[in-house]
Amino acid sequence: MPVGTQATVKAVPQDVLEDLGVEILLGNTYHLYLRPGVEQIRRLGGLHTFMSWPRAILTDSGGFQVFSLSDLRKVTEDGVTFRSHLDGATHFLSPESATEAQIGLGSDIIMAFDECTEYPAEPQRTRASMELTLRWAERCKRYFEEHQNEVPWNSPRHLAVSRQEVSSVEFQVSSNSEANQTLASQQATRNSKLETRNCTQALFGIVQGGMDRALRRESAERTIEIGFDGYAIGGLSVGEPRALTREIVESTLEHLPKDKPRYLMGVGTPEEIVEYAKLGIDMMDCVLPTRAARHGLLFTSEGKVSIKQARYAADQGPLDPNCSCRVCQRYSRAYLRHLYASNEVLAQVLNTVHNLSYYLDTMRRVRHSI
Amino acid sequence: MPVGTQATVKAVPQDVLEDLGVEILLGNTYHLYLRPGVEQIRRLGGLHTFMSWPRAILTDSGGFQVFSLSDLRKVTEDGVTFRSHLDGATHFLSPESATEAQIGLGSDIIMAFDECTEYPAEPQRTRASMELTLRWAERCKRYFEEHQNEVPWNSPRHLAVSRQEVSSVEFQVSSNSEANQTLASQQATRNSKLETRNCTQALFGIVQGGMDRALRRESAERTIEIGFDGYAIGGLSVGEPRALTREIVESTLEHLPKDKPRYLMGVGTPEEIVEYAKLGIDMMDCVLPTRAARHGLLFTSEGKVSIKQARYAADQGPLDPNCSCRVCQRYSRAYLRHLYASNEVLAQVLNTVHNLSYYLDTMRRVRHSI
Repeated sequence: MPVGTQATVKAVPQDVLEDLGVEILLGNTYHLYLRPGVEQIRRLGGLHTFMSWPRAILTDSGGFQVFSLSDLRKVTEDGVTFRSHLDGATHFLSPESATEAQIGLGSDIIMAFDECTEYPAEPQRTRASMELTLRWAERCKRYFEEHQNEVPWNSPRHLAVSRQEVSSVEFQVSSNSEANQTLASQQATRNSKLETRNCTQALFGIVQGGMDRALRRESAERTIEIGFDGYAIGGLSVGEPRALTREIVESTLEHLPKDKPRYLMGVGTPEEIVEYAKLGIDMMDCVLPTRAARHGLLFTSEGKVSIKQARYAADQGPLDPNCSCRVCQRYSRAYLRHLYASNEVLAQVLNTVHNLSYYLDTMRRVRHSI
Repeated sequence: MPVGTQATVKAVPQDVLEDLGVEILLGNTYHLYLRPGVEQIRRLGGLHTFMSWPRAILTDSGGFQVFSLSDLRKVTEDGVTFRSHLDGATHFLSPESATEAQIGLGSDIIMAFDECTEYPAEPQRTRASMELTLRWAERCKRYFEEHQNEVPWNSPRHLAVSRQEVSSVEFQVSSNSEANQTLASQQATRNSKLETRNCTQALFGIVQGGMDRALRRESAERTIEIGFDGYAIGGLSVGEPRALTREIVESTLEHLPKDKPRYLMGVGTPEEIVEYAKLGIDMMDCVLPTRAARHGLLFTSEGKVSIKQARYAADQGPLDPNCSCRVCQRYSRAYLRHLYASNEVLAQVLNTVHNLSYYLDTMRRVRHSI
């Protein structure tokens, strides 16, 4: 899943994401909660309508963002008090308010509000944190069951995107002409009268337990006992060695049901996503392809390319000779290097399109081999 | 003509420019001369190949950029010594070297190297400047006639874009599928073997003479005497009142041949380009649509929209209800406002696409009415 933090996968228009074959993207509840605000998005019909994205959206709970972005945060049984990275204002997120936010955003997959255990952590601390996440998971589920009708498309006050029409285009692989139809359909839905649909959201639980295999197993089993539509492995990629990540992923997977989506949060490199998919992971998200692109770091079938390097200044070849993306089909390394060196916005656009294409191609190969 | 200063129309991929119907764009010799350097672009096959742009390119001479961007510049009979805005290094541009640079870039339309007379200016100063521009115009023409074979596609050292194939797609109005063909054709030409073509460049002269109608007439007549493929009106939009601009344009046009392109440099607003086209101007260029877009100022059929304003935060309507561009067809004002407020790169992309579309639609209406 490409990451679309602020209701945009940075630098890439939605029609290009469709052409690339993006079927689901991740939105960050923390960022959207702060700006433009959940209630604003809800009144505008939800995140799909707001950003004109007819395919699936998963939102995180905001927990990890609070963990990683806030200077000041205070965790209590009730929830987390934190300061906005935008203006320093104090906010409070709890299992209930994080779930409420994601219902309000209208995301297709809602993540339970968890505490991401820091690394390294003492055994008692890891257990206490895991227990807190389990209690929060129950509260998330209860709130979700009681409030799942409060989706944007049940709102009588505003036009809402027609979810049935949306789902009909959700998984098409767009050619250009299909993208045009998508546009037309979008326009039609944007102008359509209010329609109330029985469209459901899914709620995923998150397994914590630090780097302790026994705690991970306990967390998995007790999270499954609560019962969710899918299960995520959280609390990894927080500074631990990669071999340890892999070990925890592998051992945790043994305790997760094979008939529900298994989502590994926040990974990884192209090699890692292939490796984790082989282990049995179904879903992953990572800012790496988009963030690295904006810093001129490009993934290719021949290895990583740092396009800022002077060695590419006269390189007339495509970025990746084995890539069929619109960037590799049209532009030379020399041109991409010039755009980056000149600090041109187009560098961010083209680099991101290529890296996303490379990641999506990688996952297509994985699915094909399965 | 959209302005593509550093071999990119800022924030917009070339396939989108093709879809928008851009038939010609302007490149800035001054910027390309400094980075990545003319010889670099020449060795890479010229500006068309370098930036993968198969349609027409006009390059300015660098004179105006030196005039407006350089802290230190010294004008002598020979040329202009100036300091780079990038690193402060000293450079020298003359009629000969500016023409050499544009031949090396392989632009379709080369502009003579002129002195842009400042405003206001004393009568003697205006005449002296005009006379200098006339002497420089002769030197440009002489250099061009003697060196026009030094185009990138005559270079035996490197692959060059096949100009004949390029011109076949030059004036198509692209649908999406046609754009795909263009991409395929581009790719084919990029990989093709060296081909030497008899492809010519055009050289345009520039009329100066400040705000003096008699001097403008004399400049026009003596520039025509030297003989160029087209004629530009320079030295306007330099701070003078708009009524005066219009008066000088109108009076100068009387002395320019109707069977050659007449190009008004550096204008203007959507209203102004309609007005100047009515007077008889055939070509214009301006950074306004692209630069204003990056600052959130959008041109619409209902007037200017400053998308940063809070009044648009909940506005579900399209930016311009009468616009059929991909931005107005897909996104709401609320979303565009959010992207701008969040300092997202996609704001620059989408805003620029809309403003260019608005300008190009304006010129299509002008051509249709003619």
